[in-house]
Amino acid sequence: MITLSSDFGTPYPAAMKGVILQESDARLVDVAHDFPRQDVRASAFWLREVLPYFPPAVHLVVVDPGVGTDRDAVVLRTGDHALVGPDNGVLVPVARELGPDDSFEAFTVAVDDPASSTFHGRDVFAPAAASVHEAGVDSFQESEQFSPTEDVVNLRFPEPRVGENTATGEVLVVDGFGNVITNVPGDVLTDRFGSQVTVNDEQAPARRMYAAVDAGERLVTVGSHGNVELAVNRGRGEEAFGLSAGDEVVLALDS
Amino acid sequence: MITLSSDFGTPYPAAMKGVILQESDARLVDVAHDFPRQDVRASAFWLREVLPYFPPAVHLVVVDPGVGTDRDAVVLRTGDHALVGPDNGVLVPVARELGPDDSFEAFTVAVDDPASSTFHGRDVFAPAAASVHEAGVDSFQESEQFSPTEDVVNLRFPEPRVGENTATGEVLVVDGFGNVITNVPGDVLTDRFGSQVTVNDEQAPARRMYAAVDAGERLVTVGSHGNVELAVNRGRGEEAFGLSAGDEVVLALDS
Amino acid sequence: MITLSSDFGTPYPAAMKGVILQESDARLVDVAHDFPRQDVRASAFWLREVLPYFPPAVHLVVVDPGVGTDRDAVVLRTGDHALVGPDNGVLVPVARELGPDDSFEAFTVAVDDPASSTFHGRDVFAPAAASVHEAGVDSFQESEQFSPTEDVVNLRFPEPRVGENTATGEVLVVDGFGNVITNVPGDVLTDRFGSQVTVNDEQAPARRMYAAVDAGERLVTVGSHGNVELAVNRGRGEEAFGLSAGDEVVLALDS
Repeated sequence: MITLSSDFGTPYPAAMKGVILQESDARLVDVAHDFPRQDVRASAFWLREVLPYFPPAVHLVVVDPGVGTDRDAVVLRTGDHALVGPDNGVLVPVARELGPDDSFEAFTVAVDDPASSTFHGRDVFAPAAASVHEAGVDSFQESEQFSPTEDVVNLRFPEPRVGENTATGEVLVVDGFGNVITNVPGDVLTDRFGSQVTVNDEQAPARRMYAAVDAGERLVTVGSHGNVELAVNRGRGEEAFGLSAGDEVVLALDS
Repeated sequence: MITLSSDFGTPYPAAMKGVILQESDARLVDVAHDFPRQDVRASAFWLREVLPYFPPAVHLVVVDPGVGTDRDAVVLRTGDHALVGPDNGVLVPVARELGPDDSFEAFTVAVDDPASSTFHGRDVFAPAAASVHEAGVDSFQESEQFSPTEDVVNLRFPEPRVGENTATGEVLVVDGFGNVITNVPGDVLTDRFGSQVTVNDEQAPARRMYAAVDAGERLVTVGSHGNVELAVNRGRGEEAFGLSAGDEVVLALDS
Repeated sequence: MITLSSDFGTPYPAAMKGVILQESDARLVDVAHDFPRQDVRASAFWLREVLPYFPPAVHLVVVDPGVGTDRDAVVLRTGDHALVGPDNGVLVPVARELGPDDSFEAFTVAVDDPASSTFHGRDVFAPAAASVHEAGVDSFQESEQFSPTEDVVNLRFPEPRVGENTATGEVLVVDGFGNVITNVPGDVLTDRFGSQVTVNDEQAPARRMYAAVDAGERLVTVGSHGNVELAVNRGRGEEAFGLSAGDEVVLALDS
C-alpha cells in the first residue's frame, strides 16, 4: 500500500500515480492533495493526525517549497511504515508518532541532478516510493540508492505553557470546517466541561461536543486530535474567534 | 466494495480509510467528501442519485450534524446493499430506492460511549462498515454488535403539487455546475419541449438539452435525475434564476 | 486499468465508477474531475501532460460542452492505450503524444439515442470504457458497437513564433498554483538562465527554479511540461503578470 499526500491540487498527483503504477501494483490511497500550499508545518500536523490510522504502508508526501534547491530527498523508516518525501521536516512529527519510542531511521535518496526538474514529486519522490514499496520496507536500504543518515531537518510543533488555571499556546491549523486547532493538550479541559473558559479575553463555554451549544454559538472543546479546539456549532470557529494559524491563544480556566 | 461519502473535505476521510484497511481488503470508492456541510437533505438526495448505479456494496455515509449526541448509528440493508451511517434520515431515500419494494431492514450499531468522540466517522462508522463488509451483507447481523430496529428517523423529500398546466415544487439542491434541481418530475415537460415555460413569473424555453440554447441563455430541462432542472447553457442556473435550495418554484406550462 | 477525467466535480464521477464496476474489476484511477468547466482546450492540455506517465490503460474523459447534440462518442487507440470520450478534440493532443509517430486509430461508438440523456458520462462513455477494457485495447473493435472512422474533430494548440531574440506565444492554462503556462518551448531559455527577460514590456529574471528568487518575487522559468512558465516563488504568477488563458505573451530575450 502506498498513500499519497501533497499540496498539488489536480492533476499533478495523477502523474505521480502513473509513475508508481509503471513499477508497482500497490494499492494507492489518497490522503489529501489540498494541504495548505507549501505549508510544511500544517502538512506535518495533518500527517501526524491521519497516517497512524493506516496499516503498514509506504507514505509518499510532497509538500516542498524548496523544490529545485539542494535539499535532500529522504526516507524515514519507523516500524512497518516508510515515509518518503523532502528533507524539510514535514515527515518528522508523524515518524516520531508511528515509531515505538519516538525514534526513526533516516536514509537519503540518491538523485541524479536535483536541480533538473520543477516536479520532483513525479521525477524523484514517486519513483523512490515505488522502489521502497517493491523492495519492501524492511530491505529497501540494500539498494545503493538509499544511504543511512543521522542528519535530517527536524520539525517540532511549538510547546504550550500550561499552568494551574491558564494555558498559553498557538493555533496549529484551521481545518476545513473552520475549527481552530491549538497545540494546548485537551486534558486541561477534562474536569471543566460545563464551565466557562476565557479565550484571549473573551468568554466561551467548554463543552464535550459541538451540538451541546445552539447552532451558530461558540464553544471550546477537545477535537478528535486530542487538542483544545475553538469552534462554532454548525459554523466557522476561525471567523468567530478571529484566529488563524500561528496566532497566540491564551486560555484562562476556572479554578 | 465499500463506498465512502461525507461532508468532511480532507484529510479526515483518509483516517476512515486507514481504519477500514486495518480490518479489510475491500475495494474503496469515494462518492464525494464535499457534500454541503451538515446538510442531511442535500446529501440524501445525492446518495439516492448515485449509489443505485453501484454493484452490491457497503456504503459508508457520514453527514452528521448530531455527532456526540445520543443519535444512533445504524445499518440499513436492502437487497445486496448495506448503508452505514448516522440515524438522521440521510440513508433513508437511497435505501428505499435500492430496495425491491421501497422497503429496508434496519439495525442499530452498539457504540461503547457515543459521547466520547468528536469523530464518529473514524471511531464508530468506519469500523462498523468494515465489520459489515467482512461478515457479509447477508450475515453481519449475527454479531451482537447489530440489533434489529423498527424505529429509524425518516426523511422524505417534499412532494410537488402537479396540476394540468402548473406545477409547484421546491429546489432540492444546486449542483456544482449551478444547475437548479427541483422536486418536480420531468414528465411535466415531456410533450412541451420547444415551448416556453413560466418559472416564478419569468419565461424560459423548455429544451431537451443545454446545447439547444445559446451559451449564456437560460433553459428549463430534465436532468439526468429525471427531475425538472433550471439551467444556463455553459453558465450557472442558480444565478440566472435567483434560486437556491429550499426556494419555491412555480412552473406555468402551456396548455 | 481505467483512468477517469472530467469537469464534473462531485458526485457525478461516482455514478460513472458504479456503472463501470458493474461490468469490470478494473483498477480505477482518478486523474482530475475539476478540469476547467467545459474547457476542451485546457483539458486537452492537462491530459497530454499527465496520461503519458501511465502504463497501458483505458482513459475515460468527459469534458463535453456538446452533450445532447449529435457529436459522436469516439475511441482513439494508440499503442497500448485507448482514449474514450466525446469527439470534440479533447482526446487528440494526448493521442498524438502517446502514439509512436503522432498517429492514432479512431472508432465511433454506437449510441442508441444520443439526445436522450443529459449525462452521457454515465450512460454512454462509462459503459463504452468498460466495454473497451473488458474486450481489451487490442480487440474491442471486433464488437459492432465500434466502427472505424477517419473523421474526428482535430485540436491543435496554437503555435508560438520563435525568433532570434523574441518569442511570441499564448497562455495555454493557469495551473492551481497560479503558474502561467505558455505555449513557448522552454529551450528559448536554455542558455539564458541568470539573465533578465522582458515579458509584455515588463522585466523578470529567468531562473531554473522557483526558489532561486525570494518569496513573492516573479520569475520566468521552464515548467515540468517543458514550456516557458511565468511564476511567483510561493505566490501566484497569474496575478503578478496579469495574465489568463488565451492572452498573448511576448518575450524579449537578451542576445
